[in-house]
Amino acid sequence: MEESFVPFRGIKNDLQGRLKCYKQDWTGGFRAGFRILAPTTYIFFASAIPVISFGEQLERDTDGVLTAVQTLASTALCGIIHSIIGGQPLLILGVAEPTVIMYTFMFNFAKSRPDLGSELFLAWTGWVCVWTAILLFLLAILGACSIINRFTRLAGELFGLLIAMLFMQEAIKGLVHEFRIPERENPKLLEFQPSWRFANGMFALVLSFGLLLTALRSRKARSWRYGSGSLRGFIADYGVPLMVLVWTAISYIPAGNIPKGIPRRLFSPNPWSPGAYENWTVMKDMLKVPVLYIIGAFIPATMIAVLYYFDHSVASQLAQQKEFSLRKPPSFHYDLLLLGFLLLRNRLVATARQCMHKNASLGQVYESMQEAYQQMQTPLIYQEPSSRGLKELKESTIQMASNMGNINAPVDETVFDVEKEIDDLLPVEVKEQRLSNLLQATLVGGCVAAMPLIKKIPSSVLWGYFAFMAIESLPGNQFWERILLLFTAPSRRYKVLEEYHATFVETVPFKTIAVFTIFQTAYLVVCFGITWIPIAGVLFPLMIMLLVPVRQYILPKFFKGAHLQDLDAAEYEESPAVPFNQLQEGELVRTASFADDGEILDGMITRSRGEIRRMSSLKLTSSTATPCKEFQSPRFSDKAYSPRVSQLSLRGDLSPASVGRGPFSPRTNEVKLSNLGKTG
Amino acid sequence: MEESFVPFRGIKNDLQGRLKCYKQDWTGGFRAGFRILAPTTYIFFASAIPVISFGEQLERDTDGVLTAVQTLASTALCGIIHSIIGGQPLLILGVAEPTVIMYTFMFNFAKSRPDLGSELFLAWTGWVCVWTAILLFLLAILGACSIINRFTRLAGELFGLLIAMLFMQEAIKGLVHEFRIPERENPKLLEFQPSWRFANGMFALVLSFGLLLTALRSRKARSWRYGSGSLRGFIADYGVPLMVLVWTAISYIPAGNIPKGIPRRLFSPNPWSPGAYENWTVMKDMLKVPVLYIIGAFIPATMIAVLYYFDHSVASQLAQQKEFSLRKPPSFHYDLLLLGFLLLRNRLVATARQCMHKNASLGQVYESMQEAYQQMQTPLIYQEPSSRGLKELKESTIQMASNMGNINAPVDETVFDVEKEIDDLLPVEVKEQRLSNLLQATLVGGCVAAMPLIKKIPSSVLWGYFAFMAIESLPGNQFWERILLLFTAPSRRYKVLEEYHATFVETVPFKTIAVFTIFQTAYLVVCFGITWIPIAGVLFPLMIMLLVPVRQYILPKFFKGAHLQDLDAAEYEESPAVPFNQLQEGELVRTASFADDGEILDGMITRSRGEIRRMSSLKLTSSTATPCKEFQSPRFSDKAYSPRVSQLSLRGDLSPASVGRGPFSPRTNEVKLSNLGKTG
Repeated sequence: MEESFVPFRGIKNDLQGRLKCYKQDWTGGFRAGFRILAPTTYIFFASAIPVISFGEQLERDTDGVLTAVQTLASTALCGIIHSIIGGQPLLILGVAEPTVIMYTFMFNFAKSRPDLGSELFLAWTGWVCVWTAILLFLLAILGACSIINRFTRLAGELFGLLIAMLFMQEAIKGLVHEFRIPERENPKLLEFQPSWRFANGMFALVLSFGLLLTALRSRKARSWRYGSGSLRGFIADYGVPLMVLVWTAISYIPAGNIPKGIPRRLFSPNPWSPGAYENWTVMKDMLKVPVLYIIGAFIPATMIAVLYYFDHSVASQLAQQKEFSLRKPPSFHYDLLLLGFLLLRNRLVATARQCMHKNASLGQVYESMQEAYQQMQTPLIYQEPSSRGLKELKESTIQMASNMGNINAPVDETVFDVEKEIDDLLPVEVKEQRLSNLLQATLVGGCVAAMPLIKKIPSSVLWGYFAFMAIESLPGNQFWERILLLFTAPSRRYKVLEEYHATFVETVPFKTIAVFTIFQTAYLVVCFGITWIPIAGVLFPLMIMLLVPVRQYILPKFFKGAHLQDLDAAEYEESPAVPFNQLQEGELVRTASFADDGEILDGMITRSRGEIRRMSSLKLTSSTATPCKEFQSPRFSDKAYSPRVSQLSLRGDLSPASVGRGPFSPRTNEVKLSNLGKTG
Repeated sequence: MEESFVPFRGIKNDLQGRLKCYKQDWTGGFRAGFRILAPTTYIFFASAIPVISFGEQLERDTDGVLTAVQTLASTALCGIIHSIIGGQPLLILGVAEPTVIMYTFMFNFAKSRPDLGSELFLAWTGWVCVWTAILLFLLAILGACSIINRFTRLAGELFGLLIAMLFMQEAIKGLVHEFRIPERENPKLLEFQPSWRFANGMFALVLSFGLLLTALRSRKARSWRYGSGSLRGFIADYGVPLMVLVWTAISYIPAGNIPKGIPRRLFSPNPWSPGAYENWTVMKDMLKVPVLYIIGAFIPATMIAVLYYFDHSVASQLAQQKEFSLRKPPSFHYDLLLLGFLLLRNRLVATARQCMHKNASLGQVYESMQEAYQQMQTPLIYQEPSSRGLKELKESTIQMASNMGNINAPVDETVFDVEKEIDDLLPVEVKEQRLSNLLQATLVGGCVAAMPLIKKIPSSVLWGYFAFMAIESLPGNQFWERILLLFTAPSRRYKVLEEYHATFVETVPFKTIAVFTIFQTAYLVVCFGITWIPIAGVLFPLMIMLLVPVRQYILPKFFKGAHLQDLDAAEYEESPAVPFNQLQEGELVRTASFADDGEILDGMITRSRGEIRRMSSLKLTSSTATPCKEFQSPRFSDKAYSPRVSQLSLRGDLSPASVGRGPFSPRTNEVKLSNLGKTG
């Protein structure tokens, strides 16, 4: 995407591109028929639980002004609007941790001001939203999205780890609170006696760790050995909501003399209970806010705009990555404009009809990268049907391999064939359509009606879920992997090389990696520390913005260009949109579902958060040349392996898209052929 | 070992063999100097915790008649005696679950009889011990040990799994009881109010699952990536006692308004508190037991004798397996005789001096296979110092491998060299000496003095430890692995072949495996069910005995001989004792400690519970012939691998002892050469 700052040009381009396939966005979805239900349910569960969790967090942090009812309702509302008139239909709207923290800052600020107080908090927030919308309009019109690649992997992964830390903090805070008497509750109640409080806390520990451990396990179900492939797939996809269900059920096991309030459960008024309508009429109060505060609302609005700009654009880019081989054009500028519209429109609709949540809505427009990824996983991805399945390919490969042992002649061609076949098979197609998104948003809206059921979830299960989100977001984050590398014993570093690993591991000296990582960690700690500062903490998104000049002007002074490029490689490239062909699309609707392939896809997607390394094909390449099996034995897989790997490994140009479609890079060919020459 | 039933011959042979090296047993230990302390501490911790756990279980099951004080004291006493005049000095005496269960049966029986009651329980048990001792004398004199190989893997592994089930049952029972009011306690106490009981139960869940999960993790520390090699080794070796310590410390975190009895901790009188001496004077009561009961004591005595005979002999054989390359002759017959003596002697000493525990002692002579293994792990095993270390070998292998890529000429010789070098390096020597055993037993005895400290361990931590013992005993148990195989999805069975696996997986049709395993499982369930029958359950060891004729006469009617041989292969072979050479022994005392090698040893030992498969050297063998690296890639490691493995794999004759010292088996050579021929 070239940088262009001509007003409206980006929006115009986006609209032109997307309008061409708008009809197809719908017909494609309908043509998929019932099969659309699987990804829809999957996304629904994957998005509903965080929305509920964030609602619960907001409820605590805003003394019950905002609850899960609001987060659910506005996620649904924004989701419906976005699915109908949004640009990139693969994005799923939700709530994210930084937004919740912004709201907490704002609430604490409002509460501390006698002329605002918690009564006028929502009205003041209304002004913040108005400012945010205006800022997002401006950003979209001016084409700010085109400079998103100034935010490198450095910023993205630091932000990702910051969110993980915030999640973990929330999980720990939540658990500690389970041992205490909640504010706004009557401390004389039986369940708040020391003994029952202690019992509640211990029960909370059991439930949250139970959820955390089983959810982490269930995510890996695809690689289990037991149960049928479809069962494993089901557990991997729906394990987390399933575990929420299971641990909620377990929380009901201790009956008898246990007071009703143990374990503590979700606290949220039913949407139809008296008082729940109070915040529907915020519009009336907006003019009561003193002018000074209306102007002051610009400051948090800037921060929220920064967060949205950064996060929404990064999510869009991630969705547009070439790994997913999207064929429809991107829509960055227009989407950001719509985001602004959504904020305003939402407000207008809410006030006009007096039946929609206005103020909570801001909290849900925000897109978290992690969620975008999580929700984009397997059920949403359709395998392109190829002339033969993976299994067949496997068998043919065996044959070839055993032939090669006997017939020595045309080795290089054989190798070529194998590679080509894998690559023909690999490209994964994502169904780009709007239907699943619409259905998902509607389902989330339906959750509001199900509040009496949702309120049965113990709050401790949600704390476990926060911890789960934190841990789940770590694999694939190179920043995290570099931190782990620092703690890896020198004698075991070769193990990193044996697995899928990022380029820098091989190309950048360890000392440089260490310095870079320590710098990034220090920066992260500062960011995290800022969120702890009572009111000035609202400025923490500035720190993320600040990374752009730091990366561009300061870091090159301390690191070699090549090293920096490897450590901070990902200028998230968009795939050059393959000319959209409607006939071809019809073909793509057919789905092939190999139970075993899901595991491979799963692995690929996790690994590919930014960069895909096709180690496997490298091994294929070098296998004919060297007696390699001894390196596979547990005793000899050690150091022996690493020089070979670093010698042969190539980066970037081996991602499936380029290998599958483009020619091989000259360097690959060279290594391959020279090795083969030596064998033959 | 040939079967010989000439009275005393076995004992005579054993004595003759062991006496020759008796002096060396001591000098070797002393010559090792301070290095003997590492294995000693290791064994001490590995044996003290189970002894304490079983003491706690006995305390509950016998209404406090027998406690950890008794189990500790008599383990120490018997251990000291065994280390001084025992035959095989590598065996470590301890308590085991079946014995505890026997005692529970006996206690319940005694309590239900008005003319015995719990008062005369110990006296009656005294008679049971007398009978047991007489039976063991007879068995030893008649050379019964020589028919121990009639107990095949079928029996051994069924017994192992039965013990694991009993452990797990104990863990669950213990946890459930944490929610209830203990018998023999004042239910009016604050900590037994419903709220505190519930809190205690939940706390117990946290502590026991915490111990279980962290202990399981710590056992795998050797393969961690983080921390130095010695730290990893330390955690792997001492992780379990360390975790007991950590979780005991954690149990003290909730202070404040928590009553003192929460969490519940070990219940055992201090050895010096009044009343604790009561059972020292049991001898006086033995004559008060009605004659009918003295005669009736023969029945439980038979069962205990069967258990001891079976378990002690199997443990001795396991210790004598050729994997450990022991050089000193075995001592089966004599040991069993000594076991009998120990029982009697123990009693006499106790009565005479009135300062030793008599009745509890029976509970500790028993040897569990799991423990023997566990305690025999790494720190006890010395690596034979070779001219060069593993690391050097690794490097030379790399060189060789890379050379082979270039210089194509003498491939087969190169391969040969590599194999020889590994084999020169591999044989692991076990220090056979008596000193560590003596020290360990003394230390266990010292625990009695440390009872006030030991009593700080929460009982729930011990329930977690029971679960840990159950789970730890499973890997390597082929019966268990066959059960897992039944539940493995057919499409994933190839994964079993990719790992270290037993022979039968390749040679026996799945259906036969299934039928055999289902039969064995049914048998196991019956055994387990019998232990639930109130008093007749005492007969459960008979079921194990019954497996001998079942295996010998009934199973061959339903299974093909070859299949049966593979499924039930291990007639635990003794290694033919290499003529003992004192000069050579002196050399063995030198130890080499590679941190990394520990992991390899760990793996080898776990795998080798009965059978070692040297997959690694097989891979070496075939590597030159076939382009193998592609099988290593995640996508292609699937089916491709299995036919090759089954084609090449050999069993038995590839165990380190035979490969390292004897000539290669003709079959190995053949495969290797024919493959090489095709390459060259």
